[in-house]
Amino acid sequence: MTGADARFMALALSLGRRGMGQCAPNPAVGCVIVQGGRIVGRGWTSPGGRPHAEPQALAQAGELARGATAYVSLEPCAHHGQTPPCAEALIAAGIARVVAPFDDNDPRVAGRGFAMLRAAGIEVRTGVMAEQAGRDLAGFLMRNEIGRPLVTLKLASSFDGRIATATGHSQWITGPEARRVVHGLRARHDAVMVGAGTARADDPQLTVRDMGARRQPVRVVVSRRLDLPLLSNLARTARDVPLWLCHGPHVDPALVKAWQGIGALLLPCEVTQGQVDPASVLHALGAEGLTRVFCEGGGALAASLLSAGLVDELVGFTAGFAIGAEGLPGVGALGLARLDEAPRYRLVETRALGGDVMHRWSRA
Amino acid sequence: MTGADARFMALALSLGRRGMGQCAPNPAVGCVIVQGGRIVGRGWTSPGGRPHAEPQALAQAGELARGATAYVSLEPCAHHGQTPPCAEALIAAGIARVVAPFDDNDPRVAGRGFAMLRAAGIEVRTGVMAEQAGRDLAGFLMRNEIGRPLVTLKLASSFDGRIATATGHSQWITGPEARRVVHGLRARHDAVMVGAGTARADDPQLTVRDMGARRQPVRVVVSRRLDLPLLSNLARTARDVPLWLCHGPHVDPALVKAWQGIGALLLPCEVTQGQVDPASVLHALGAEGLTRVFCEGGGALAASLLSAGLVDELVGFTAGFAIGAEGLPGVGALGLARLDEAPRYRLVETRALGGDVMHRWSRA
Repeated sequence: MTGADARFMALALSLGRRGMGQCAPNPAVGCVIVQGGRIVGRGWTSPGGRPHAEPQALAQAGELARGATAYVSLEPCAHHGQTPPCAEALIAAGIARVVAPFDDNDPRVAGRGFAMLRAAGIEVRTGVMAEQAGRDLAGFLMRNEIGRPLVTLKLASSFDGRIATATGHSQWITGPEARRVVHGLRARHDAVMVGAGTARADDPQLTVRDMGARRQPVRVVVSRRLDLPLLSNLARTARDVPLWLCHGPHVDPALVKAWQGIGALLLPCEVTQGQVDPASVLHALGAEGLTRVFCEGGGALAASLLSAGLVDELVGFTAGFAIGAEGLPGVGALGLARLDEAPRYRLVETRALGGDVMHRWSRA
Repeated sequence: MTGADARFMALALSLGRRGMGQCAPNPAVGCVIVQGGRIVGRGWTSPGGRPHAEPQALAQAGELARGATAYVSLEPCAHHGQTPPCAEALIAAGIARVVAPFDDNDPRVAGRGFAMLRAAGIEVRTGVMAEQAGRDLAGFLMRNEIGRPLVTLKLASSFDGRIATATGHSQWITGPEARRVVHGLRARHDAVMVGAGTARADDPQLTVRDMGARRQPVRVVVSRRLDLPLLSNLARTARDVPLWLCHGPHVDPALVKAWQGIGALLLPCEVTQGQVDPASVLHALGAEGLTRVFCEGGGALAASLLSAGLVDELVGFTAGFAIGAEGLPGVGALGLARLDEAPRYRLVETRALGGDVMHRWSRA
């Protein structure tokens, strides 16, 4: 039964990943109902977080759920929120066995879902594909545990690690295939975040384009003084796609009013050493419900996150040309004296992407 | 016959590659003798360049060479040098058919080898696997054509393109697997080259270690003033492994004497814009017989070669940590204003190597 359990759980996990970046602050969960070795129901958390995966899979299964096994990529919820608890739904449908990777660390669940199932006579197996599930749900679990979202840092650079020429020319370092993968990465995060310098220099939209109709990630800009151009792509689109501005404590009240008028959400953060404190930024984003944040630079924000040990995943895109030492560095000053002071990342994957190299890393 | 020709030629090419870095100024050629579909002889250019591949393969084949096909990865030589011409040896052995990728561009051969074979009634087929052969023999062909060796530039850097901390700490950026591949790359080049700054900062040996007993590549240091430490690993080993110093026109005669006394070969080069001219360096190395040069930095020499369009292959090793903007850049200033001014390289391969990423590129 072990091999089959792992196989069906892998499917539940892959269904769960469809909701990544779409359902914060809820976890992106997948569910598969199996009756006599045959899949009779599949579901995943809907955009916005409701309905959950389990009732959708149970609805597909109908009467075939009776006596079946449910594979869920996280402990079923036990609390009455906007919807009745999923543990109750599984019991009511006559599920005989539930397989899951681990307990939900949300204090409202925390083992109570499994306890409800067991009390109803349902067999519960946990620990199945826990490592992969831990990676998929890392942002959700991290927000519950330490109050901040997972952070992925992207660096698209020349062969020698530069992101623009000295004159600021940066379009395009990487080719269309790499840029398309970046849009896919944006879509699988709850928010895309940049520093004020990048917002000023590139006038980006930071939206997901050409990936089908999806919920757009929140755009976050970190700007100590809120001195961002009010005539910009971000400002222009703030009513269509959320724009959140993380700023320091002392900002011009006229700027606050102006940005609020445009439709931006303002998040006051602490300042340390003359910069918006990155931990304060991430806690503010966590408090607003974000579980996965994709940081696209620039160098100062990347350095500030790396220095504070707040980067969980790295994604590099390397192009086949050099810009040279006077080009703009992808990561600002870190103040390292020795190499062993730098936090190390473990290589997850490297592959060719059009004419560029993509390499993904995870905290070691 | 075409599929079989390509297959046997691929084998001849792979045998030829065994001689890479071992037989300059001669080409690293491979030869396979096939009699009735069976391989009866294999040979490749010996270290130092003699004997050639063909007589070794013919000696293995013995009487079975009569009526056989010889696959040679370059046109057989036609001139009397230290050894009789290989074209004559093939004729004398009774070879019926010769398959090769293309003419040798050495003016002493240049089609005369094929002409000799055809005049003796041997069928000659050319154009087989010419692209791969062109890559394998690029350094040899380039030296004949334009007088300089092929240049491979290595960059082993942090995720953000730095090769050392601000305080010069650089051991180790990459792991043992990547360093082992670097030794393999050194072994497949005729010389390893660094700038004076790297020679001073790292006190390197620049030898091939732990790769079995092989001919060591020449060590080349580019130093305008010859102001390199006389107490160094390079100086200490100059009688065991060749040490060549490329310097500017105005150097202290006492330094010239001292380095000659230690056993170094001094190569005077031109200076342009305050730096040893990289084209002049490569022409001096070509004149001394080098066909493949592996440049391991530092940033100033890498930038000077890239700026002059003298880098043919790039090999990058990227580690999973950032050093930050104050770290030492892997490529010095290039003076680019726009991205489209940079010479582009085509991705050949990317793969994981221990905990690092290796990526290889070739001139687009």
